Amino acid sequence: MENEIQRFFNEEEQQILEEILLHRRDVRGNHFKKDPVVEEDVDRILQAALAAPSVGFSQPWEFVIIYDEKTKEAIRGSFQEENEKAIAQFSDEKRQKYIRLKLEGITESPLNIAVFYKPKKEPVLGQTSMPNMGKYSVVCAIQNMWLMARSLNIGMGWVSILDPEKVKGILNAPKENQLIGYLCFGYTDKFYNKPELEIKKWDYKKLQHEVVIQEKYK
Amino acid sequence: MENEIQRFFNEEEQQILEEILLHRRDVRGNHFKKDPVVEEDVDRILQAALAAPSVGFSQPWEFVIIYDEKTKEAIRGSFQEENEKAIAQFSDEKRQKYIRLKLEGITESPLNIAVFYKPKKEPVLGQTSMPNMGKYSVVCAIQNMWLMARSLNIGMGWVSILDPEKVKGILNAPKENQLIGYLCFGYTDKFYNKPELEIKKWDYKKLQHEVVIQEKYK
Repeated sequence: MENEIQRFFNEEEQQILEEILLHRRDVRGNHFKKDPVVEEDVDRILQAALAAPSVGFSQPWEFVIIYDEKTKEAIRGSFQEENEKAIAQFSDEKRQKYIRLKLEGITESPLNIAVFYKPKKEPVLGQTSMPNMGKYSVVCAIQNMWLMARSLNIGMGWVSILDPEKVKGILNAPKENQLIGYLCFGYTDKFYNKPELEIKKWDYKKLQHEVVIQEKYK
Repeated sequence: MENEIQRFFNEEEQQILEEILLHRRDVRGNHFKKDPVVEEDVDRILQAALAAPSVGFSQPWEFVIIYDEKTKEAIRGSFQEENEKAIAQFSDEKRQKYIRLKLEGITESPLNIAVFYKPKKEPVLGQTSMPNMGKYSVVCAIQNMWLMARSLNIGMGWVSILDPEKVKGILNAPKENQLIGYLCFGYTDKFYNKPELEIKKWDYKKLQHEVVIQEKYK
């Protein structure tokens, strides 16, 4: 028999989770402190990742822990190239706002973690009809990391303005691996009380009734 | 000036988050109770989703709340079709285990929520180099829902053995929407103390050193 103690969470614990969810922010280079992230905290963040759900219990994730400044500089090179291309895609009004935003903290943060999806050769339970499920499992792991980091009062930023193939090259990643997220971690001088892009009026916060549909679409 | 109260989480709060992460399970039809999920809990789960990070603050999500038994039966039809196809893909040994597993709880759970990604026509900040980022934002919302549900002592199961186009048809979803997750919610008679597929030896739990790489791949 399995030893099955049923953990029942109470209202106070539910509210603590809600506070962590609501206070989680994407932190960029203008708010990272240089202090190294203590090893125990790095372990707790990785353990949070390993507790994530995964399709068919496939755990299709790999995490590259990066402290090396040269590696970070090389990754930042890819950001700069991709960001130049990105700027050109926005309308004039948006472009003026875009170029004033600090969008990454690769070299300012003491710790970077590249998170990869490693596909399996054999079929994966639950992934046979929806092939993206393995990648989605890796995203669940990243969200767990983000929440754990926030609870540890550590900021995380997810950098997506990167060429995934260049990042793979810089990290010698196996051909089959796919980059899902490039994450920057560090203690911060502040967490904004709202998403930075909301404060800076890039877009407005959607309300529940705008995105919830009852039973089916009309 | 923004009112910026810095919320600092303490060790006890960090441990509560860790417990929620570790006690979250994928719940299937053999463990759902029929009792309806109270509206206040549904709202808290949806508010957790809306607090998720999204690329460029795009919030590209839509949630269809399904109670109707006929809709659930139709969705379950797609599961059955896709599951038949899936069974054929596994090796003999795995197939024998596979067919004994209960893999969904669509009709047994009182509440289903279909979660869609709604692409935007204009370019999205942060999605210009990694086009999947919008879908990944929706997955972050789903993981928030999963954790919030668990803290409310509500089970959630993510059903991925479905034909996304059939689900869209059943729900009259707009052509451009993409199904990311089909979720089942309900109170449970028990939460397993480990992933069901670990208990049933479908696969083993990976250890940190197996999936963590220092600095770069060799």
